[in-house]
Amino acid sequence: MSKTNRQLRLKSRPKGPVSRDNFELATQSIPELAEGQALARVRYLSIDPTMRIWMADIPQYMPPVAIGEVMRSFGLAEVVESRNPDFKRGDKLVGFTGLQEYTLIGGSEARSFQKVPSIPLVSDSAFLGVLGINGLTAYFGMTDIAKPQKGETLVVSAAAGATGSIAGQIGKIHGCRVVGIAGSVEKCSWLTEKLGFDAAINYKQPDWREKLAAATPQGIDIDFENVGGEIMHTVLSRMNLFGRVVVCGLISGYNKEDPGLASFATVIIKRLRVQGFLLVDYVPKFTDAATQLGKWKLFGKLKDRETIVNGLEKAPDAINMLFTGENIGKMLVEL
Amino acid sequence: MSKTNRQLRLKSRPKGPVSRDNFELATQSIPELAEGQALARVRYLSIDPTMRIWMADIPQYMPPVAIGEVMRSFGLAEVVESRNPDFKRGDKLVGFTGLQEYTLIGGSEARSFQKVPSIPLVSDSAFLGVLGINGLTAYFGMTDIAKPQKGETLVVSAAAGATGSIAGQIGKIHGCRVVGIAGSVEKCSWLTEKLGFDAAINYKQPDWREKLAAATPQGIDIDFENVGGEIMHTVLSRMNLFGRVVVCGLISGYNKEDPGLASFATVIIKRLRVQGFLLVDYVPKFTDAATQLGKWKLFGKLKDRETIVNGLEKAPDAINMLFTGENIGKMLVEL
Repeated sequence: MSKTNRQLRLKSRPKGPVSRDNFELATQSIPELAEGQALARVRYLSIDPTMRIWMADIPQYMPPVAIGEVMRSFGLAEVVESRNPDFKRGDKLVGFTGLQEYTLIGGSEARSFQKVPSIPLVSDSAFLGVLGINGLTAYFGMTDIAKPQKGETLVVSAAAGATGSIAGQIGKIHGCRVVGIAGSVEKCSWLTEKLGFDAAINYKQPDWREKLAAATPQGIDIDFENVGGEIMHTVLSRMNLFGRVVVCGLISGYNKEDPGLASFATVIIKRLRVQGFLLVDYVPKFTDAATQLGKWKLFGKLKDRETIVNGLEKAPDAINMLFTGENIGKMLVEL
Repeated sequence: MSKTNRQLRLKSRPKGPVSRDNFELATQSIPELAEGQALARVRYLSIDPTMRIWMADIPQYMPPVAIGEVMRSFGLAEVVESRNPDFKRGDKLVGFTGLQEYTLIGGSEARSFQKVPSIPLVSDSAFLGVLGINGLTAYFGMTDIAKPQKGETLVVSAAAGATGSIAGQIGKIHGCRVVGIAGSVEKCSWLTEKLGFDAAINYKQPDWREKLAAATPQGIDIDFENVGGEIMHTVLSRMNLFGRVVVCGLISGYNKEDPGLASFATVIIKRLRVQGFLLVDYVPKFTDAATQLGKWKLFGKLKDRETIVNGLEKAPDAINMLFTGENIGKMLVEL
């Protein structure tokens, strides 16, 4: 019996929003299974912001989807035929199904699928969301990076999204004050009335910045960032000293080329730790440090150089020389 | 005997580069010293990029200098008269002298000045640079935040500046491969020939990105960032996974309003830790995490919601719904 498989192949790369024209709907006949293969019928496709990135020909953490290839996606599929002892008919699997009706499992691909247990009261699709990629992303972002402490204030952007909604609830489990940012009254109500968020801010209202300020009277200790851009910037401006920013997503920038966001995108792709600091925080350690620096200098391990101008009147020019790059080493005015 | 003190007071805030017109040169007669006061003659004014920030009326880590106030600066001054037993004539002090010829020390101000020891072969002015704010900034940024490991590659921007030149040398002391980015042939020669940098890149040459790539064949583990903007972005693009970015300064943005840099500026001012992450790094911990999530879900501590559309053809629209915000919770396509 020969089955056909319909699939969406990437036809062109979107410039802005994704359109149906970026895909080609192709029909493929499914070959007979070889030994070691299994065939699974896709039940649910997981739709995630990262798909927009996979469609773009930019540096990223996986190769972009090639033109002509089946569009990459997570999904949940049920085994319908099997010639592989590890998979039997009826098994439910999550993994990279791609945007198609059937997915062939076998050989090295078998490793990228995980079997889903049957748990009473838990729908299969939960393994794509709260118990799958979104739940896990929220879990590790919160427990491994944010490390929330009781009484801290957590702000989550895209809070009504699959990951943000879990991240906020994990914050509540840890005793945080949790404030969500979302884009509709309905979403905000869901967050506060159903999920237990302490407050939810609709960023489409013109006074959302004031409302965010009012909802975070103690400032913000943790930003679980899913959006980037103007929303991130507003949240950052209310962060407490030594706060933590979990850069999970930057959805506001995926549809456009925003050079300001590009560096933050690299922070995610490369899993960078970016840390700001100011010397004022280290005052108690100054003596030890200066002693070490002095030793290095005396032993010739540290060399320095000065660029000196003379006279108080030259001080404004000297400030400018830092920016035009006319100084080498320390810029000084001698009086 | 009445002395006069010349001082530069902030007259207006610069829009772009600093100009002499932003200051007023005022002459003040110095009053007789009261009990507990000392008078010090400023010998060296320290000129630092942060002064440009202090001149601007933007959120920052200290109050901006008010219009009419003596412009804030570090400096080295020598006590010339004293009615304070802690300071005697000839003592040399570093602290916030301000852009003026004399600084009055007394009462609470006395605490902000530190005495400078006399060390053979070490000039007084070194206590403003290599043994002062720049040396200390480089020291703590490197040892407390970058934590360089032997064999790692460190890139320093504004490498021929007062802080960058020390940061790079501290990297060499720790056994790193050190590459500096600077803005002239002379600066680059100084870095490689005198300071022991492994390579120095002149970013004013059109092929500097290729040269940076060639100079960092193993990628970059640590970015000691003093510049921001395009230079930072290029360095970040060559970072190795899990690299560390010490955000020390963003001088490329201080003279202009660059919204892309504004968020990074907040990272410094608030001493934030910004960390990117991807779920793929946590695969070995998935089972434990999913078990925890499952428990929370079963005990009603985690609630989820799905937005489902039907049919493969709807998948492109579903991707877009993430961006238009039409979904609440997990976005799925049911097949």
